[in-house]
Amino acid sequence: MKTGVLGDFLLCSNTAKCLYDKYAKEMPIFDYHSHVDVTEIYKDRHFENITQLWLEHDHYKWRLMRLCGVDEFYITGDAEDRDKFLKFAEILPLCIGNPVYLWCHMELKKYFGFDGVLDEKTAPGVWSLCENELKKPQFSVRNIIRSSDVTFVGTTDDPCDTLQWHKKLRDEDIGFTVAPTFRPDLYLNIEKPQFCDALDKLSNASGVAVDGIKTLKCALRKRMNYFAACGCISADHGCDYIAFEEPSDGQADKILKKAMSGGCLSDNEIAIFKTLMTLFCADQYAELGWVMQIHYNCIRNPNEFAYKSLGTDKGFDCIRRGGTGEDLSRLIDKMSIKKRPKLILYSLDGTDDAFLDTLVGSFACGEPFGRIMHGAAWWFNDTCRGISNHLHSMSSLGVLGNFTGMLTDSRSFLSYVRHDYFRRILCLHVANMMDSGQYLAGVERAGEIIKNISYCNAEKFFGMESVT
Amino acid sequence: MKTGVLGDFLLCSNTAKCLYDKYAKEMPIFDYHSHVDVTEIYKDRHFENITQLWLEHDHYKWRLMRLCGVDEFYITGDAEDRDKFLKFAEILPLCIGNPVYLWCHMELKKYFGFDGVLDEKTAPGVWSLCENELKKPQFSVRNIIRSSDVTFVGTTDDPCDTLQWHKKLRDEDIGFTVAPTFRPDLYLNIEKPQFCDALDKLSNASGVAVDGIKTLKCALRKRMNYFAACGCISADHGCDYIAFEEPSDGQADKILKKAMSGGCLSDNEIAIFKTLMTLFCADQYAELGWVMQIHYNCIRNPNEFAYKSLGTDKGFDCIRRGGTGEDLSRLIDKMSIKKRPKLILYSLDGTDDAFLDTLVGSFACGEPFGRIMHGAAWWFNDTCRGISNHLHSMSSLGVLGNFTGMLTDSRSFLSYVRHDYFRRILCLHVANMMDSGQYLAGVERAGEIIKNISYCNAEKFFGMESVT
Amino acid sequence: MKTGVLGDFLLCSNTAKCLYDKYAKEMPIFDYHSHVDVTEIYKDRHFENITQLWLEHDHYKWRLMRLCGVDEFYITGDAEDRDKFLKFAEILPLCIGNPVYLWCHMELKKYFGFDGVLDEKTAPGVWSLCENELKKPQFSVRNIIRSSDVTFVGTTDDPCDTLQWHKKLRDEDIGFTVAPTFRPDLYLNIEKPQFCDALDKLSNASGVAVDGIKTLKCALRKRMNYFAACGCISADHGCDYIAFEEPSDGQADKILKKAMSGGCLSDNEIAIFKTLMTLFCADQYAELGWVMQIHYNCIRNPNEFAYKSLGTDKGFDCIRRGGTGEDLSRLIDKMSIKKRPKLILYSLDGTDDAFLDTLVGSFACGEPFGRIMHGAAWWFNDTCRGISNHLHSMSSLGVLGNFTGMLTDSRSFLSYVRHDYFRRILCLHVANMMDSGQYLAGVERAGEIIKNISYCNAEKFFGMESVT
Repeated sequence: MKTGVLGDFLLCSNTAKCLYDKYAKEMPIFDYHSHVDVTEIYKDRHFENITQLWLEHDHYKWRLMRLCGVDEFYITGDAEDRDKFLKFAEILPLCIGNPVYLWCHMELKKYFGFDGVLDEKTAPGVWSLCENELKKPQFSVRNIIRSSDVTFVGTTDDPCDTLQWHKKLRDEDIGFTVAPTFRPDLYLNIEKPQFCDALDKLSNASGVAVDGIKTLKCALRKRMNYFAACGCISADHGCDYIAFEEPSDGQADKILKKAMSGGCLSDNEIAIFKTLMTLFCADQYAELGWVMQIHYNCIRNPNEFAYKSLGTDKGFDCIRRGGTGEDLSRLIDKMSIKKRPKLILYSLDGTDDAFLDTLVGSFACGEPFGRIMHGAAWWFNDTCRGISNHLHSMSSLGVLGNFTGMLTDSRSFLSYVRHDYFRRILCLHVANMMDSGQYLAGVERAGEIIKNISYCNAEKFFGMESVT
Repeated sequence: MKTGVLGDFLLCSNTAKCLYDKYAKEMPIFDYHSHVDVTEIYKDRHFENITQLWLEHDHYKWRLMRLCGVDEFYITGDAEDRDKFLKFAEILPLCIGNPVYLWCHMELKKYFGFDGVLDEKTAPGVWSLCENELKKPQFSVRNIIRSSDVTFVGTTDDPCDTLQWHKKLRDEDIGFTVAPTFRPDLYLNIEKPQFCDALDKLSNASGVAVDGIKTLKCALRKRMNYFAACGCISADHGCDYIAFEEPSDGQADKILKKAMSGGCLSDNEIAIFKTLMTLFCADQYAELGWVMQIHYNCIRNPNEFAYKSLGTDKGFDCIRRGGTGEDLSRLIDKMSIKKRPKLILYSLDGTDDAFLDTLVGSFACGEPFGRIMHGAAWWFNDTCRGISNHLHSMSSLGVLGNFTGMLTDSRSFLSYVRHDYFRRILCLHVANMMDSGQYLAGVERAGEIIKNISYCNAEKFFGMESVT
Repeated sequence: MKTGVLGDFLLCSNTAKCLYDKYAKEMPIFDYHSHVDVTEIYKDRHFENITQLWLEHDHYKWRLMRLCGVDEFYITGDAEDRDKFLKFAEILPLCIGNPVYLWCHMELKKYFGFDGVLDEKTAPGVWSLCENELKKPQFSVRNIIRSSDVTFVGTTDDPCDTLQWHKKLRDEDIGFTVAPTFRPDLYLNIEKPQFCDALDKLSNASGVAVDGIKTLKCALRKRMNYFAACGCISADHGCDYIAFEEPSDGQADKILKKAMSGGCLSDNEIAIFKTLMTLFCADQYAELGWVMQIHYNCIRNPNEFAYKSLGTDKGFDCIRRGGTGEDLSRLIDKMSIKKRPKLILYSLDGTDDAFLDTLVGSFACGEPFGRIMHGAAWWFNDTCRGISNHLHSMSSLGVLGNFTGMLTDSRSFLSYVRHDYFRRILCLHVANMMDSGQYLAGVERAGEIIKNISYCNAEKFFGMESVT
């Protein structure tokens, strides 16, 4: 399955084709950030139909259906799987230029050999094709991962998770590595209603009764150690926005106790607590040698009605704008130079690209790659134009050759085509630089760099060269 | 006059030409948002010269002249019409890449058959050509509109307007529909010095003595009913910025009374009043089945000297930046799901495109088209690049096929060429998607979508399928 | 040395080549904003090797090395010059698409005739080539400037500077003009720790004992007069951000005295003082006929560790985002119409381009060119894409033909290739407008405009037509 998906798609110059064919296509996938369900990997799930694969969890597709006025019954409701698929196929041709349109066709071609165009007319045929194909052994979750040439899968996990499936998978030889990622948002978001329940959960999981800053830190560190023992090499912080306030343990302790006793916190208090705890986490990650990922500038659940009826992560989030960047800059500066973990920063606001590329340059220090990275075009930016803008910004303001590259950030096991999508755009970007005389070093050098961005840089940044 | 203006201009691929020629060119125009003067339609004005058409009201052109140091005497001053035109023609060749440069040449070609280039040398000839042509009957306002194939003209009107011309036009069979748009800014902008006078005017027009929130609502609702009876199907709110504060009738009533008695309001009080009144309006529009348009992120009249000497809308406004988008998100969320009107959102800050496209996705619900729309590239964004960026953003983050498309937003009766300009860029955009393998559904499907974006979607969104 | 650097580089159409060859290439350089060291011009320094020219001061190159994990020893440390160069050459091939990559090759080609590609293998040869070439008389600083066809060099200077070298240079006939630029940041940044020391220095230099607003103004005006007498025609204000607060002399006087006696100032007090002093400066510049440049939206020295160990301007600054633009708008509005100096505005946040282009349109008034200008793509925006975006924005929203064009903003005497780089992108931009039918006025008119943007507009805006 390593041959080109949709042939020369996006590769509109000979140089681009050459770079893709000779260098990018061959590289395996190091998928360091995803939301796939580890249970399904352990149990090696077999999907019965394309709706289970495509529409069970994919809020990208749900959004498009809602934008076309499709009733929620066919989206997250109780409609039959086949009807859901037909509804989706019906609206897909309206989505000119949407990455979902492309991903769908790339997945149908790569995994099911479907060469046609999905619409209301072809949908019944595609449904049957997939249903038949999915019965074959190659469509077990593990076989999909293996045939996609994935060497590393990073999941996203609650610090209280037992990681039972991760542990079991470590005992087997499955042909690729699955590692958990420590995502402590729930225990840092002191302003959210779930916070106190989260602390109870953390007390139970860690065996440390959380009653103040000291015990909170202790409990989190215990869970980090547990995660590390289960193969974790990275943490991920998802923040609506970045706030920085000069922190102190004493203040933060009072604020935490106030929150635990039901008190109402000011913005300033929230910021002090979060700053302190984020810095604490960064310190620990540095000690553990982990990569710290920070995702920010997101408005989560703005649609109260949808949130109440459907819950989180159902396709109702949007980009958050604004901020001067000074909070993020001060947060990173406050991480002491010796204890700063390897960092990857992502903003959901694509207009932050240039800011982040220059910020990264202001804190570069040491190996590998200056240890601070602007992450790949995230979520709503994971589009042809978003990726291209991101590459232009990083090229212009940083060192493209050091880029740690792509990740799926997906709940679906077919999303590995996004790496192919990214590599095509990357090859076209570099080819354009070469063809316009802006890069002079020749195809071999460029090819080496493309291989690194496609795979090796990420493997090195996460410290897994000797493992995967 | 339906043949291509400037031939293949902007259509730099065969696919683009084909899409334009077979689908876009033929479609009529549904111009749902403009600032043309209804009196001139009713009286079927005949313009005497090109300055009356081009330079009487067009602040786009005035700005360019000022940027070239032209004296105000030749712009809004008492210079002869011919001299004003000559001055404008003299500076036009400096405006490489400005849409005004293009619009001028498109208008000269389409309406006057002028094939040349306007500059200081050709200006006297163009002046004479236009003067002669304008004497012909086809250059009455109504004939211009008819020959431009316009089926619907939305004007912009003060809620206190008698709409006498609109009413008279409804009694005639003129070949196209003219409808008023309800624009209540004056009665919501509690912080502006004109506010109290505006309330007096509203009391008179509505017959309701406005002395508090209850009567203010009552008066506005009376005017809405009047507008509806005169054919209104839309309202337009022009906001410098969006502010949201949790509103209550009691508070808002006190704030209004404070303002009416000359008290000085805090930012918070202003925000409470505006939030409450905007939500009230939204409720009413939903009941009436109207489309609510919101335009924001504009710095109005920053140049005090110009404002005092020339007044508003004279070409001295500029883009406003900033804001997190949370205010707008909360405002829309607060409109109850059942009472949310059809919405079209426009930001003057073009870097808000991606934010708006994702926001729209977070509130999509129901027919037609999810009922919430990112409006066309507005004002300073109505340029080749602005439109192209807008289409890219909507394509990447939303459903392009549902886009309600273009409007002139103009004071000039020759501005219908902006629809042609838009359609060319649209056809090129879709053609590029097809030619690069990003859209696979074929020319017919793409053509159908282009027809919808050019005309049918707007007609449907405004509920006028059966009327125009 | 006037022949094209790297041949047709970036000129990817016949029209672009024609515009460049016939119009842009021939024009001399009016470099109105740079950071070159006047002492080195006066002493006509001869550099010994390429490291002295390239790596002694160039924080652009330092950033790239740090992003590749190069040890500071090879950057600003005590490593041998040759070793520093080899380290830099080693990482350069990673920098696909970075302007430094291009500038390096343009400089090697233009000044040293090197046709190859710089990397770790070619580096020793390039080192020797440069070492030999630099011994030749044509590589004295003055000869480099002359052979680069520079007619005007604007340096950047502290108001307390004696300008001794500028004065001596005025007595010689060196074939080009060198003028100081008045940069008063140190005496306006009341919140910075160096402020009180700066005032002492100013008292000494001016002979006016600064003890309040009145004496501060008096001292600054004395230094302005001194600068004017030494040929100064411009001032430059570098602001992290723009703050506006309605100012009064009385308040500002109290705030200044509070700062001088070690008091801690509120944000509001800082803003009042800065607003008042900036407006005072603007008034004086208007009287003197100077151009006032304002650079803003920069986070300076975010990396405390680097700042403490290496100091300012060492490659650790980054873009600052945000702000509504209202502060800048109010600041300019407050400059009285008759006393407003010629202005050039630069934001480090490239997404401000459209805002600045419309702001400039809102304050345009009088000759030359409306007297208010959006400056060239600054610093991190001085890239192929940044310049192109800037030209698109200015074209779409303003009058491209009036643009005052490029400057080096550099510490290096080889940076004049940046003008060539800019002119190529400019020619390509205009050529694309012509080839796509968006500009109709023909090659001669376009060529005239390109000559003006390349040179004449700046000379005219700075009032130097009759001098250089």
